[in-house]
Amino acid sequence: MISAVVMSEPHAPLELRSFARPELEPGAILLRTLGSEVCGTDGHLWKGQLAGVPYPIIPGHVSVGRISALGPGEAPRDVDGVPLRVGQTVTFLDVYGTCGRCWYCTVGHATTRCPERKVYGVTLSASDGLLGGWAEYIHLKPGVHVIPLPDELDWRAFLSGGCGMPTALHAVTLGEIAFGDTVVVQGAGPVGLCAAVLAQLRGAGRVIVVGGPEARLAAATRFGADTVIDIGSTTPEERIAAVREATAGRGADVTIEATGVPSAVPEGMRLTRDAGRYVIVGQYTDAGETTFNPHLDLNQKHLDIRGCWGSDVGHVYRAVQVMARYGRIFPWTDLITREYGLAEAQAALEDVAAQRVVKALIVPRQT
Amino acid sequence: MISAVVMSEPHAPLELRSFARPELEPGAILLRTLGSEVCGTDGHLWKGQLAGVPYPIIPGHVSVGRISALGPGEAPRDVDGVPLRVGQTVTFLDVYGTCGRCWYCTVGHATTRCPERKVYGVTLSASDGLLGGWAEYIHLKPGVHVIPLPDELDWRAFLSGGCGMPTALHAVTLGEIAFGDTVVVQGAGPVGLCAAVLAQLRGAGRVIVVGGPEARLAAATRFGADTVIDIGSTTPEERIAAVREATAGRGADVTIEATGVPSAVPEGMRLTRDAGRYVIVGQYTDAGETTFNPHLDLNQKHLDIRGCWGSDVGHVYRAVQVMARYGRIFPWTDLITREYGLAEAQAALEDVAAQRVVKALIVPRQT
Amino acid sequence: MISAVVMSEPHAPLELRSFARPELEPGAILLRTLGSEVCGTDGHLWKGQLAGVPYPIIPGHVSVGRISALGPGEAPRDVDGVPLRVGQTVTFLDVYGTCGRCWYCTVGHATTRCPERKVYGVTLSASDGLLGGWAEYIHLKPGVHVIPLPDELDWRAFLSGGCGMPTALHAVTLGEIAFGDTVVVQGAGPVGLCAAVLAQLRGAGRVIVVGGPEARLAAATRFGADTVIDIGSTTPEERIAAVREATAGRGADVTIEATGVPSAVPEGMRLTRDAGRYVIVGQYTDAGETTFNPHLDLNQKHLDIRGCWGSDVGHVYRAVQVMARYGRIFPWTDLITREYGLAEAQAALEDVAAQRVVKALIVPRQT
Amino acid sequence: MISAVVMSEPHAPLELRSFARPELEPGAILLRTLGSEVCGTDGHLWKGQLAGVPYPIIPGHVSVGRISALGPGEAPRDVDGVPLRVGQTVTFLDVYGTCGRCWYCTVGHATTRCPERKVYGVTLSASDGLLGGWAEYIHLKPGVHVIPLPDELDWRAFLSGGCGMPTALHAVTLGEIAFGDTVVVQGAGPVGLCAAVLAQLRGAGRVIVVGGPEARLAAATRFGADTVIDIGSTTPEERIAAVREATAGRGADVTIEATGVPSAVPEGMRLTRDAGRYVIVGQYTDAGETTFNPHLDLNQKHLDIRGCWGSDVGHVYRAVQVMARYGRIFPWTDLITREYGLAEAQAALEDVAAQRVVKALIVPRQT
Repeated sequence: MISAVVMSEPHAPLELRSFARPELEPGAILLRTLGSEVCGTDGHLWKGQLAGVPYPIIPGHVSVGRISALGPGEAPRDVDGVPLRVGQTVTFLDVYGTCGRCWYCTVGHATTRCPERKVYGVTLSASDGLLGGWAEYIHLKPGVHVIPLPDELDWRAFLSGGCGMPTALHAVTLGEIAFGDTVVVQGAGPVGLCAAVLAQLRGAGRVIVVGGPEARLAAATRFGADTVIDIGSTTPEERIAAVREATAGRGADVTIEATGVPSAVPEGMRLTRDAGRYVIVGQYTDAGETTFNPHLDLNQKHLDIRGCWGSDVGHVYRAVQVMARYGRIFPWTDLITREYGLAEAQAALEDVAAQRVVKALIVPRQT
Repeated sequence: MISAVVMSEPHAPLELRSFARPELEPGAILLRTLGSEVCGTDGHLWKGQLAGVPYPIIPGHVSVGRISALGPGEAPRDVDGVPLRVGQTVTFLDVYGTCGRCWYCTVGHATTRCPERKVYGVTLSASDGLLGGWAEYIHLKPGVHVIPLPDELDWRAFLSGGCGMPTALHAVTLGEIAFGDTVVVQGAGPVGLCAAVLAQLRGAGRVIVVGGPEARLAAATRFGADTVIDIGSTTPEERIAAVREATAGRGADVTIEATGVPSAVPEGMRLTRDAGRYVIVGQYTDAGETTFNPHLDLNQKHLDIRGCWGSDVGHVYRAVQVMARYGRIFPWTDLITREYGLAEAQAALEDVAAQRVVKALIVPRQT
Repeated sequence: MISAVVMSEPHAPLELRSFARPELEPGAILLRTLGSEVCGTDGHLWKGQLAGVPYPIIPGHVSVGRISALGPGEAPRDVDGVPLRVGQTVTFLDVYGTCGRCWYCTVGHATTRCPERKVYGVTLSASDGLLGGWAEYIHLKPGVHVIPLPDELDWRAFLSGGCGMPTALHAVTLGEIAFGDTVVVQGAGPVGLCAAVLAQLRGAGRVIVVGGPEARLAAATRFGADTVIDIGSTTPEERIAAVREATAGRGADVTIEATGVPSAVPEGMRLTRDAGRYVIVGQYTDAGETTFNPHLDLNQKHLDIRGCWGSDVGHVYRAVQVMARYGRIFPWTDLITREYGLAEAQAALEDVAAQRVVKALIVPRQT
Repeated sequence: MISAVVMSEPHAPLELRSFARPELEPGAILLRTLGSEVCGTDGHLWKGQLAGVPYPIIPGHVSVGRISALGPGEAPRDVDGVPLRVGQTVTFLDVYGTCGRCWYCTVGHATTRCPERKVYGVTLSASDGLLGGWAEYIHLKPGVHVIPLPDELDWRAFLSGGCGMPTALHAVTLGEIAFGDTVVVQGAGPVGLCAAVLAQLRGAGRVIVVGGPEARLAAATRFGADTVIDIGSTTPEERIAAVREATAGRGADVTIEATGVPSAVPEGMRLTRDAGRYVIVGQYTDAGETTFNPHLDLNQKHLDIRGCWGSDVGHVYRAVQVMARYGRIFPWTDLITREYGLAEAQAALEDVAAQRVVKALIVPRQT
């Protein structure tokens, strides 16, 4: 029997349940889980803040495993087109079922808005099987996009970015950072920290992280932020003044929002220079409205604002390549504060919610 | 002596004053004015709603004239590099003095944010001479960018677009309309009408104009709008529903805001489809704040919003080419409701403010 | 029994063969063919100039039909997500089987380079059924992308563009024409003529068509080209001089190549201005090498050259919207020189190859 | 008196001449030269391979100096708008006189194609004064764009990139490298090495340098290239095979050409994957023609090729920011093989031409 953590409904204590080993269809894959991240979204799931979640679920959307078995028939292929083999260490895109046929997939080229997409660990139900990462094994349905980890990328290193890395990679790509730009990142959680790293890998001239608490700001500094600004001890006006002072009075060339707090958005507009670019990636749940001045904050500023939703195969594929290549410069695993067994999942959830840890992993078979 | 309309201070009645014929510096040009537009901005100037205006001013920023005299020395050249000649019918970029040296000019490539720029008829003072279009003659300082009107473009036809045409051309360019896109234009004033025309000249599949009053909506229809929605007789919810119904439930691919009303902005976000684009060009003066929901309206929508400020040489140059080429399809002069002599400038201002006219021209020597 | 034209092998006379009515799988569609275009590619197929063609084939890749029957189960949906119904008039993307899983589909976002794609009438075999348009009925396999024609777009009007319209739409999109640009189109066949039309629907300031013979140049003029240059009576130097003269000495802002002749490519580089853009869409078959000077023609020119291969769902969907919307301005059906019955297909092929017609249609049941 | 190196005509030995200290106009600056690079272009100048050079000239286009004196009146400002002061260490854009008024400056936004631009050390004559960097002092005319070096960027470190750094920055920007891309750089001279570094600062997943001789390839490796391929010991076919093998058979996502050899261009097309991007920056002089196959190499490949000419204020400004920020990772001064006094300029020229050095500097007052 296979053990998995089950979130039966919002606010209920997580449980360990046993599942039968699944029968694999042609094209399916069984992964023995090496690790799965604990993400802010898991906290939102537990608090019931996301719509359309088919509880009970097995949480855990970004995971790494070793291929334990393949379904009958021709071996499924990885994103590069190479047939997969038992024993390989792989990750996979948590988004499953993007249809490739709807208007958003074919005409709009906005696949993260495809209405058919489901997400492992979020919108796939435990009633349908081992479709989440906080489990000894994960059942990859036919068509799941699989990406092997290169030898030079340890699985823990990859998970230390978690879903924050492809999310930040999507946001930073939309930010279109130019060489030498000053980049402000609002928020020092996993998405913000990954954005601060990736801004350096776009040749930013200066990276300023605005956030807290202190442990996260220390991580930002360790990962190369030139300046950190503690939101706990500054006013919005002080933060705006500090960024302007660092930029000959102009403001940031590019700002990346990764906070989840509505009031961060008008502040971010003001942190950004005229004709700059502002990417909103942190407003993942509905936390209410905010106010702004369309003349001053947007029109006269000639400001470009981009909402950024979700990530897709390319973002995860590219995140893997980047993390494998730049581990010499960025000590990824330093982001991991603690690893938890399956039985400790409730503690992991609470530690993440309380911001006691930077990145927490669920590791089913700790060694 | 040369007659010119002078706005001595906000709210004061416009006056006719006499000016001496200016001495031309090398590179300067004296234009005999054929016509000058009356624009919504002139109303803002009269109400004192713009900062930094050096009253007294001669209003009139977009104008056409015949070259009456050239300064001594080598003849100045038009934008194509051809030397100018007395007798040519030309327009010119109202923005004067963009420095070409500051960070915004050289690194940011955002010349409309250059701090040195002044505007004929807006931020150049009557104390310094004939630096506005509501006058018998206009003094073009050395370095003003001059664009001859092609033979096939009548001067009245060009002025019927006024500054709305280059402004809309800038906004529609930022909108990056794809062939077949549904475009919603919020606002049926000169900028909105020009945007509705230009959307067709980007191959839009459907153009929907949301605005009023009825005369302007009739103009929108005459200029090719597929659908008009009267804001006077509909609620925001009804407008959003109408646009969704026309687009298989998705919303507009591209929305252009040209209203000046802050509450139009959150409505425009909701009129636009997920992963669509929304250009804000109408929030030209500070009319206060508005509220929106960053999660629903921006982040989850994967929406791209672009503030659009001012226009530059290229926009006017391109507007001239487009209006000359597509006069066969669009009867530009139909936009002109009435022409006013210099002595009737006050009436022109009031008719525009009251939206009694679509486009009003000041024509110093009516024939 | 169902009649279809079969090309059994290169150079062999076309034959009429009878096929049984196909059994429809779930998700499949049977179309009663209204018409199918004859395209230059059909000539290449007959001459054996394309690799990987599984003769025998039923030619005809862009077609329109009426839905005659749907496979069992849930009705397939059109690109907008609306369930299809018997009796609807539709076209479909000839490209079938794009995998949505390979690197080009998911990471490279270059779906026209997906190795799995097959094309109706080109790389699908008559041995596998009614998989081409020159037939009384066409069998759409499950997953073929279907686009209904709007009421305002007559099926003949849509076919008058043929595959030239989405191909040109792709090329013109890559050309990134700005308002007022001078656009040169090399070639006056269906792709070139469609490009000349679409350039106007991007607001080009001047459209120059370089090609021949006279009948095609006359069509170019009827469809709005400002200037036509006959390649039969001019030298490359004369053509370059003519374009420079029309553009203040600079050359075209954007050039679209649609000729199939290798020597057109270096000429096109020289027809284009410094820092302009040049799209190569006509080099569809291997017609040998050509020479150019990388310093003069490319590097010092700061020239941008874009090869353009194939088209995808979005291009056909957008072509349908554009043709439906702008039929008021462009009399599409004027492009059709002649319609041929199934039994006349050989004559159609020869008329197209000899450039005796602008656009030829196969119409199975002429009325 | 001020010593300067003068190139009186092509192929003539360089001479040391004495110049009077120049009288400074308002806005002018006198720099005491700290150092000036020796660039491949200087070899081209000496061989008479560039058109329009007003011999005699003082070579040296990219230089660093200390501000020795300012012209009368208001102090000129740096690119950030800050007034300059005597004693500051600065560099400047060698391109002088870009007009800001012609079509290329205002409409085309292609300032490197402005016909008015002159270049210090290249197209400004020694007859007009100290207008090149191989001199004890440099006379910056009013309007030259000046950029102070930040404290953390030693002047030698900045010069070790020389004009190769802004040139490569321009090329790499046009390359639009995405995170994780495989980038091939053709050429291991200063432009190629800088491109290899900058590709890493765009987050490339793999950087492959194709070039020679061995000393330069060793530098490429020291500066982070993942793979180097020696052109001396491989055939084009072997190089293409090596790149394909490293990329799952596809080829490079982005290729940057920095060789000056025409035959490198068709090879580069074949090194690049379908739908990839190829930037041509090294074909700086006319070295003749080359051949390619438009169908295979361009159209079917869906390849994007971009010629890249010159650089502008933004490129130098951004190069300064990037070099200041990433000196922790890249040991810039390792690129400098040797420094030469003014009297040794001829030897410097010959060492560069013979590729005996990676980067050579002229240092007027060696300490």
